[in-house]
Amino acid sequence: MSEFRHDVVGIGNAIVDVLAHADDAFLDTNNITKGAMTLIDEDRAKEIYGNMGSAVEISGGSAANTIAGAAGLGASAAFIGKVRDDQLGEVFTHDIRAVGVDFDTSKAGDGPSTARCLILVTPDAQRSMSTYLGACQGLGPDDVPEELIAGAKITYLEGYLWDPPLAKEAFRKAMTTAHQAGQKTALTLSDSFCVDRFRGEFMDLIKNGMIDILFANEAEISALFETDFDAAVSSVRGLCEIAAITRSEKGCLILSADEKHEVSAEPTNVVDTTGAGDLFASGFLFGVTSGRPLAQCGQIGCIAAGEVISHFGARPEKSLKDLIAEKGL
Amino acid sequence: MSEFRHDVVGIGNAIVDVLAHADDAFLDTNNITKGAMTLIDEDRAKEIYGNMGSAVEISGGSAANTIAGAAGLGASAAFIGKVRDDQLGEVFTHDIRAVGVDFDTSKAGDGPSTARCLILVTPDAQRSMSTYLGACQGLGPDDVPEELIAGAKITYLEGYLWDPPLAKEAFRKAMTTAHQAGQKTALTLSDSFCVDRFRGEFMDLIKNGMIDILFANEAEISALFETDFDAAVSSVRGLCEIAAITRSEKGCLILSADEKHEVSAEPTNVVDTTGAGDLFASGFLFGVTSGRPLAQCGQIGCIAAGEVISHFGARPEKSLKDLIAEKGL
Repeated sequence: MSEFRHDVVGIGNAIVDVLAHADDAFLDTNNITKGAMTLIDEDRAKEIYGNMGSAVEISGGSAANTIAGAAGLGASAAFIGKVRDDQLGEVFTHDIRAVGVDFDTSKAGDGPSTARCLILVTPDAQRSMSTYLGACQGLGPDDVPEELIAGAKITYLEGYLWDPPLAKEAFRKAMTTAHQAGQKTALTLSDSFCVDRFRGEFMDLIKNGMIDILFANEAEISALFETDFDAAVSSVRGLCEIAAITRSEKGCLILSADEKHEVSAEPTNVVDTTGAGDLFASGFLFGVTSGRPLAQCGQIGCIAAGEVISHFGARPEKSLKDLIAEKGL
Repeated sequence: MSEFRHDVVGIGNAIVDVLAHADDAFLDTNNITKGAMTLIDEDRAKEIYGNMGSAVEISGGSAANTIAGAAGLGASAAFIGKVRDDQLGEVFTHDIRAVGVDFDTSKAGDGPSTARCLILVTPDAQRSMSTYLGACQGLGPDDVPEELIAGAKITYLEGYLWDPPLAKEAFRKAMTTAHQAGQKTALTLSDSFCVDRFRGEFMDLIKNGMIDILFANEAEISALFETDFDAAVSSVRGLCEIAAITRSEKGCLILSADEKHEVSAEPTNVVDTTGAGDLFASGFLFGVTSGRPLAQCGQIGCIAAGEVISHFGARPEKSLKDLIAEKGL
């Protein structure tokens, strides 16, 4: 086993979020599927942006949010993702480095601009996302340094990476490299529509032992097994070393071969659910890489998720390190 | 007098704010003057940005914030300011148009990038601003359409416009055009350091009757007359038709030849004071252009300021129209 240089390395789409409030009528009028992540092209991005209200720009990207959160908790962390050499690429790069994450993927010098996710937050705090992948489509296996993966305890991958075709190859290379080095891999299923798009491939990865830690919410795990939640939970057990299932206001369920833990959600005034699952993964991965028991990993995940849903945007505003210290964790 | 096409037209530096939390030690280490707006060049902007934490990007600019707020209250409004044809220029343009403001100033096709203001918010909610003016330096008299100014009840100008040399000419053209058309002008003194830079010129404008409505806070009005607050207040009365003096948590003081009103601040949990003065001006100008008594104009100003200091960023998050309706205004 290599010497550890990082607790966790994340690979994902490098995205800047553009967040605005909207009502349900706006989603209907603009044909936006509530609660989902929908891929859009540049013309559609212009159309939605032109119609939506005054916005704020905050670095996002699912795995990037997770890695930023893990670093905020104290994990040594790195991120791999593709931006362009434009202003939003500079914003993304600054924000992830500013929280101590190593981020050295080469920027695209031409081609599509840095990815944007247009996020509409409805009064019920639900977020509906329309993503223009832009420069993310250029991420490929050459962007995955083998020594970086081999030197990380966990390589964390987002299911969304299966959308840009080249990224899938980067994903496979990373998983293989991690396991060859005796390290662990983790996957988030990302979104139930994403599971619908790639169910067979995700299932093959899991059944072939490529995924050690699986993150999913209720809709995603049910979509994966095409069954109800309880049946899906029974099915996943044993296929992965650990399954961490988030259940919104009901907290989370942590499963391994020998353990099963139900952890309560943190009481929070929910403002914007963007990043809830991402930050849960931050806390859980920090817990695992710092050698804590599984129930505590779930608890830290719930605390991090509780922070991020209490305000606009998917990056923590408060010190997560302080928050878990306050809870004696 | 022309037919009114707008209640208010604002001219100002078109800026995107980059906001992050910081402590006082960070300001000291980076030689940033607390509470002030300091002009910086591109190298210094890179240096501060490189040192500061993970940030959020929100459209800003003092007069632009005021105009966005006035539009949010129901005023018909336009803005004149210069961005480049880059991503942050697109962000600025989108956000001000999204609240219903007419914004048609031509974008710079080359030269410096869209202006950024690096704003550090300390735990006491005070903001310290470092501004890279970038494309704003290209704003000149040709960007001021005479018919737009002639058709507005009030032309609102920020003192900060005296920093980029060409903008000063745009400022003078707008004032002259407004008065020739029988309309009113308003000026905010912007910042006490800005007053120090241009005291003589600002004083000439005021003494020569070029300013009908003057906005200032305690530090700015004292700096203008180089005396204490009470003496400054006595001096300003009569020099302008109306003086609207903001006093932070003490509310505001509204003076005209015949009237004097003290208005209390709105009770608020102060998170970030960025935009407090700008949004006060939004409310006050909306009040004046909708024909309300001066005390009520001050009250609406305090409500708008109270909203903007309750969250990060200088653009309102809640509907200001709803907020004043709740107060029966």
